[in-house]
Amino acid sequence: MEENFKDKKINKTLTRVKVNLDISFDRETKVIDFHYPNELLQMNNWELQDEPATLDDILISCRATLKYAIKTAHPRYFNQLSTGLDMVGLAADWLTSTANTNMFTYEVAPVFVLLEYVTLKKMREIIGWTDGRGDGIFSPGGAISNMYAMLLARFKMFPEVKEKGMSSVPRLVAFTSEHSHFSIKKGAAALGIGTESVICIKADESGKLIPADLERRILEGFVPFFVSATAGTTVYGAFDPLIAISDICKKYNIWMHVDGAWGGSLLMSRRHRWKLDGVERANSVTWNPHKMMSVPLQCSALLVREEGLMQNCNQMHACYLFQQDKHYDLSYDTGDKALQCGRHVDIFKLWLMWRAKGTIGFEAQIDKCLELSEYLYNKIKDREGYEMVFDAIHAVFVACCQVAPVIKARMMEYGTTMVSYQPQGDKVNFFRMVISNPAATFEDIDFLIEEIERLGQDL
Amino acid sequence: MEENFKDKKINKTLTRVKVNLDISFDRETKVIDFHYPNELLQMNNWELQDEPATLDDILISCRATLKYAIKTAHPRYFNQLSTGLDMVGLAADWLTSTANTNMFTYEVAPVFVLLEYVTLKKMREIIGWTDGRGDGIFSPGGAISNMYAMLLARFKMFPEVKEKGMSSVPRLVAFTSEHSHFSIKKGAAALGIGTESVICIKADESGKLIPADLERRILEGFVPFFVSATAGTTVYGAFDPLIAISDICKKYNIWMHVDGAWGGSLLMSRRHRWKLDGVERANSVTWNPHKMMSVPLQCSALLVREEGLMQNCNQMHACYLFQQDKHYDLSYDTGDKALQCGRHVDIFKLWLMWRAKGTIGFEAQIDKCLELSEYLYNKIKDREGYEMVFDAIHAVFVACCQVAPVIKARMMEYGTTMVSYQPQGDKVNFFRMVISNPAATFEDIDFLIEEIERLGQDL
Repeated sequence: MEENFKDKKINKTLTRVKVNLDISFDRETKVIDFHYPNELLQMNNWELQDEPATLDDILISCRATLKYAIKTAHPRYFNQLSTGLDMVGLAADWLTSTANTNMFTYEVAPVFVLLEYVTLKKMREIIGWTDGRGDGIFSPGGAISNMYAMLLARFKMFPEVKEKGMSSVPRLVAFTSEHSHFSIKKGAAALGIGTESVICIKADESGKLIPADLERRILEGFVPFFVSATAGTTVYGAFDPLIAISDICKKYNIWMHVDGAWGGSLLMSRRHRWKLDGVERANSVTWNPHKMMSVPLQCSALLVREEGLMQNCNQMHACYLFQQDKHYDLSYDTGDKALQCGRHVDIFKLWLMWRAKGTIGFEAQIDKCLELSEYLYNKIKDREGYEMVFDAIHAVFVACCQVAPVIKARMMEYGTTMVSYQPQGDKVNFFRMVISNPAATFEDIDFLIEEIERLGQDL
Repeated sequence: MEENFKDKKINKTLTRVKVNLDISFDRETKVIDFHYPNELLQMNNWELQDEPATLDDILISCRATLKYAIKTAHPRYFNQLSTGLDMVGLAADWLTSTANTNMFTYEVAPVFVLLEYVTLKKMREIIGWTDGRGDGIFSPGGAISNMYAMLLARFKMFPEVKEKGMSSVPRLVAFTSEHSHFSIKKGAAALGIGTESVICIKADESGKLIPADLERRILEGFVPFFVSATAGTTVYGAFDPLIAISDICKKYNIWMHVDGAWGGSLLMSRRHRWKLDGVERANSVTWNPHKMMSVPLQCSALLVREEGLMQNCNQMHACYLFQQDKHYDLSYDTGDKALQCGRHVDIFKLWLMWRAKGTIGFEAQIDKCLELSEYLYNKIKDREGYEMVFDAIHAVFVACCQVAPVIKARMMEYGTTMVSYQPQGDKVNFFRMVISNPAATFEDIDFLIEEIERLGQDL
């Protein structure tokens, strides 16, 4: 009886999910059915109770959850770097949930551990590390991948820091562009390095780090241990000049990290990968397939040039998990190189999508997003009412000024489209145009422009 | 045409998933179809290619992935602290995948952000923090939750560490039981504190931290800033004496953390929650619903007593994500209190299970696991061939000696059951009996004992 009830619950829930999937891609559907937090709290009973809820209540809750969720797969959702919903990726994520296991040992995740091994190897090859060596891990997002890189750089230079802490080493300094992602500072704060030891290097007008300024700051003193170059900055989409940066890192013996959380995926495109020329000289690379490759969230990789370093840096030899007398090859027990103990299985959706599309499929998808981006750029660069923040198109970013917060609020209330805005340095609020959704078309770009104008016409 | 092909792919994949679900709970199915890594690498073509794979190939891959996966839902899978597969939790996880969004702002995850708010508040109440205040976050696993706690404790005592790093503060020391989880040391290594500054406190014969030893070590010098008591140690399942520990923390003004990754769920049980008496005096608590509450992986919460501290400790004011001029209440943009930028949605499966079962449903499930555990303990405590590692039952652990590695290898080859083994301190390898799978019955416990004896009879 209870089982039967459960089955009904599940089947009905899944029917809701299916219906939601169909409408997610429908342009007639709202991107968002927006309500203020206090309103939304009152629109359903969300409280947790002692007694079980009825089947009806469960279904109402699922319906409400889907109704008020953002339709991130909607062709007119341009709000984040992660958009879209790949059906093979989704099916793979569902299979992953069903397998419900953990990445720490081969024993509990034999296939997933092998697929991670195969995929990381392939990604390293694409970076240009073709000797079959190297390392890597799938981590819970780009911020953690970047933190891993900083942790490894510090350990490489001062292995004693693991046991003795920062008080055993001289004052370290890290360098990154003033346009880099905030996770570099966040990582430095967490690792006990301190945000003041992250030196922000000037960027030029188009948002690229200026190598001469990097070298000048390196010479100012303390112990430089880490440079994080960005391949695809968060706001401008700029690519730092990796070759020039790598020369400097080599000269001063500094770990070179490339934060390609956003732009790393361009490595899959023969037409665009030149933007990352020099990436093969890095010591580590962050690359998030959940961004421009539209793999369902989360899927972020850190790739490391040196083999064995992650293990040495992070291992604690927990003998109850990583028994040394097991009957299989222990090199597949990857858990002790992670900061986490249990680790979510993020690999299967990427792996299955890659199989289903092939490398050329990802390439076509990425090329199309960049083509749409260029189309948008050309359409608005001389258009009345817009002002380009800078006159260049780097990745899939174009930026244009407007009374952005008001228009954005109206967008959300109408629910017709969503795009992000922000200030940067001395520039006031501007829209940041991101196209990473494979479902978007030229018509959606036209719609976006018309809609911004419609919503802002009285301003 | 391509769409049609895709639909077929997805429907067939989901059919495989469904079949797999049915057999997962079937006792006639093997827990594992074990193959050595090199064998498994050769049993399918796992390589990533330039060209798209055929539909057949995709289905073969899905089938192989499921065939060689561990059946973690199997009633005879006792290998990890996370076992079982709840159908409502699974449906909720599928819905989450479909929504494919991120936890950083209310803007992109309105419902999930509210549900996290509601659930964290409820969990804090259950801990005993009933004034409605406090904070918390769902993080990617217990190790990261513990690291958050250590980070907060350090920031609370020396807020300048965020900007100036560890070189601005005196040498800090943290304390935890010799039986605590390795993530405490891992966290200290990452945060620049160093593993040597984690002082291991002696545990008594039954695995509980000895408060007198804690106080003695605190008095030895340096700056004590963090005590991590364990509620449910990884190997013995012991509960440290929280009241005595909290008295010491209060006396010396030290942050008290309770690592209840495993045992925190006992707070849901009126019969067993006394084991955590004193938890309400803690400054922070790790509690993983993906363990004893059988929520699908991953689902780990850190609960914090003081409101606002997480935000102050971790915020970097990234203006492109957390715009201060948005049109809704910004206190719901929780992303800047996280170490991560994007954060996976782990809340919905817990929330929906809680609605479906009610608090009393979780309680019944937990009580049953502990009952099975007691049954197992009583069955083997005087049985020939077994020796109890210690004569007590704490949570859902019982341990008994044997020629464990050989028996374990045979278990995996036959695929009939799986249970973990390990050494601890001066004890040789022993089986660690964990029961967290709601599908397990008395008969499965009987089977486990018989199977260990069958597989070990010639040894």
